[in-house]
Amino acid sequence: MQWMVWEESSPEEQKAILDRPVSDTSAQLREGVRAILGAVQSEGDAALRAFTQRFDGVVLAPEAMEVSPAEKLAAREKVSPATIAALNLAKENIERFHRQQITKRIELPTMPGVRCYRETRAIEKVGFYIPGGSAPLPSTVLMLGVPSSIAGNAQRILCSPPQKDGSMHPVILMAAELCGIERIFKVGGAQAIAALAYGTETIPKVDKIFGPGNSWVTEAKLQVAGDARGAAIDMPAGPSEVLVIADDKADPTWVAADLLSQAEHGSDSQVILVSTSRKMATAVQAAVEEQVKSLPRQELAREALKQSRCIIAANLQEALSISDAYAPEHLILQVEEPEVWARKVQNAGSVFLGPWSPESAGDYASGTNHVLPTHGYARSYSGLSLESFTKHITFQHLSREGLAALGPAIEELARLEGLEAHRRAVAIRLRPEERL
Amino acid sequence: MQWMVWEESSPEEQKAILDRPVSDTSAQLREGVRAILGAVQSEGDAALRAFTQRFDGVVLAPEAMEVSPAEKLAAREKVSPATIAALNLAKENIERFHRQQITKRIELPTMPGVRCYRETRAIEKVGFYIPGGSAPLPSTVLMLGVPSSIAGNAQRILCSPPQKDGSMHPVILMAAELCGIERIFKVGGAQAIAALAYGTETIPKVDKIFGPGNSWVTEAKLQVAGDARGAAIDMPAGPSEVLVIADDKADPTWVAADLLSQAEHGSDSQVILVSTSRKMATAVQAAVEEQVKSLPRQELAREALKQSRCIIAANLQEALSISDAYAPEHLILQVEEPEVWARKVQNAGSVFLGPWSPESAGDYASGTNHVLPTHGYARSYSGLSLESFTKHITFQHLSREGLAALGPAIEELARLEGLEAHRRAVAIRLRPEERL
Repeated sequence: MQWMVWEESSPEEQKAILDRPVSDTSAQLREGVRAILGAVQSEGDAALRAFTQRFDGVVLAPEAMEVSPAEKLAAREKVSPATIAALNLAKENIERFHRQQITKRIELPTMPGVRCYRETRAIEKVGFYIPGGSAPLPSTVLMLGVPSSIAGNAQRILCSPPQKDGSMHPVILMAAELCGIERIFKVGGAQAIAALAYGTETIPKVDKIFGPGNSWVTEAKLQVAGDARGAAIDMPAGPSEVLVIADDKADPTWVAADLLSQAEHGSDSQVILVSTSRKMATAVQAAVEEQVKSLPRQELAREALKQSRCIIAANLQEALSISDAYAPEHLILQVEEPEVWARKVQNAGSVFLGPWSPESAGDYASGTNHVLPTHGYARSYSGLSLESFTKHITFQHLSREGLAALGPAIEELARLEGLEAHRRAVAIRLRPEERL
Repeated sequence: MQWMVWEESSPEEQKAILDRPVSDTSAQLREGVRAILGAVQSEGDAALRAFTQRFDGVVLAPEAMEVSPAEKLAAREKVSPATIAALNLAKENIERFHRQQITKRIELPTMPGVRCYRETRAIEKVGFYIPGGSAPLPSTVLMLGVPSSIAGNAQRILCSPPQKDGSMHPVILMAAELCGIERIFKVGGAQAIAALAYGTETIPKVDKIFGPGNSWVTEAKLQVAGDARGAAIDMPAGPSEVLVIADDKADPTWVAADLLSQAEHGSDSQVILVSTSRKMATAVQAAVEEQVKSLPRQELAREALKQSRCIIAANLQEALSISDAYAPEHLILQVEEPEVWARKVQNAGSVFLGPWSPESAGDYASGTNHVLPTHGYARSYSGLSLESFTKHITFQHLSREGLAALGPAIEELARLEGLEAHRRAVAIRLRPEERL
């Protein structure tokens, strides 16, 4: 871990230690992704199968791209009751928290005769991307599928790369079933994003794409979001992050465990400890060294730890300013009176208060969403919420009197902006003699 | 206008008539914008001044880039009382409508001992882009500035290109003053977006950029939104659009006036009439021909009308399906019982009900926001709202009992996902004997 005492450092050093390594999107990645998107647009399913063979090493018959009812049935048999219970408990909590996010209809007369209102509608077609890799990620299926069920999206498509044997992991299918996601396709990577954004013979085009992925998936999502023929996306994504603020009362082994649960995500994970106590920071570092030894993913974790930072703050106020400047995806407050400090947090994706709230609670089962803004995006983005699956429409209904009252202001502003037809649309109604 | 009878047309023809012309972002535009962003990042203010000279034909001294207090004072003298009254009325209505959008804090125990909550925070730094052109756009200043005032964004920067004489239009300055926007810079185009996204010596970097612009501005916004060092943006933008549904009771001259108020925006404006009555459609077309003659912007309007479409629907239900498939930015319901039909609308930015609700009401003064999703983005995006200026943070505070209840589910899911450190962060707390 790289150490720094905040108040003894120059503004440049302070800025540098909070800088994230930005992996520039290489022209090669950009063009590689552009080529995949182009191929899927022009060749459809054939391109998907070719890419699946090339990148996943799996040859899929055209009719095997979509998971069949038989495969879903078989999957149920393979998932243990303990897993189903865990998925169900997580699902119920996520459901409870996201159900509170239902937006109320707004209606008011802004002036007599000028009735304005706003209503919420579910996005019709949504697509979920679940990455493959060494282990399945059923928790992400729940984080996308549960709020989507509440929102009531009419069409839901899930894409995830096939395993080496051409199957999809049964626990992914189980989680999808719990959320009522009906159509599931064995396609991964940028080609899956292309299929969801543009549609193919088999995979329907969707309006918005959700879910995490590697740099190819992320770049593909950005490209389709910037293409008017493409699809909207949930948010841009970078490596996962945690910032822990620990005072001198925290348990260093618990703090260490939280730091490691972030570090094990990948060698590019960001791990930052901010402590008001040098003694605590030293103890945490020792505990990290101790605990990492027995982790199965210790190599990834050690890589991440090399880039990790330990910052000594003069007091909790300063610690919080450091955190706000960094805008972490996850912020853990291992301090006395965490509620007091939580109220002051300005920039963070999700905040974990006190000793009994490890990040893994929110990652899996407490009810909050784990799809959160990384890479400083917490300054401007929210994590996934029910609203992410819906949109608002505004409405206005004016009476003759309402338009008469508003008319002069509209005509004046339209005149100023040089938009005469805008002005006339009002004038012609209020003073028909102006018809020409 | 291109005519079509919906039920007599093939699915391909139906799809084609609702297709928007997609102007492919040329590699030239992409690279041109990338070069501007790069120059502003490396050369800062010097690059801004060079681009301002090149694109706006204005040479600005370094200290003249920011609008001075003296310029603001002088502007006040130049704006008429009628204009100030119109701006104030619009501002009050926008304020009333957006104040209703304040999001309530959410809090609940998802399980005993598992307290989850969500709070809203204003985005700290926001930037507004107001395009230049033949006439000033004070209404857009209000549409960005008013909700931002309610949200309470701490820092607000406005950029707009200078006029030929190096000044900024007084009504822009007046509208900005009404919204309390303090810092205003005379910079336009992609270079303004670069300055807001990355900061220069003079212009502070912001977290999110709002506002419309030409294809260079739009491409610049997409590029900075895709760059982790850049800034978030409000939404992607395309040419403005209206779809009017008119039954046989509508006043054809009013419908024509509404179509023209869209057509005059620019030659790429999208104008669609859907009517259940051939007679009505014919009368509207005649009225459009008549009214366009005397419009100052008739050339632009005529260009737009060449691309415009008139679709005859069998009934209002079909008309609404056509509209939902197109997902217009503005939808005008010139029909009997508009409230009944409005309830069924699925995809639209903003809806105008009945004869007395011309689009210009919402463009200027009724209170709804006029920054709306174009180009079919209404399928997945909302128009600008108070929420666009804020973000949510989720929080969780577990007790020992809460973690004990959740623990088994977290451990099971972490195990499945192969994330042992995630599991241990729970285990170590509940069963300290597992410390190693």
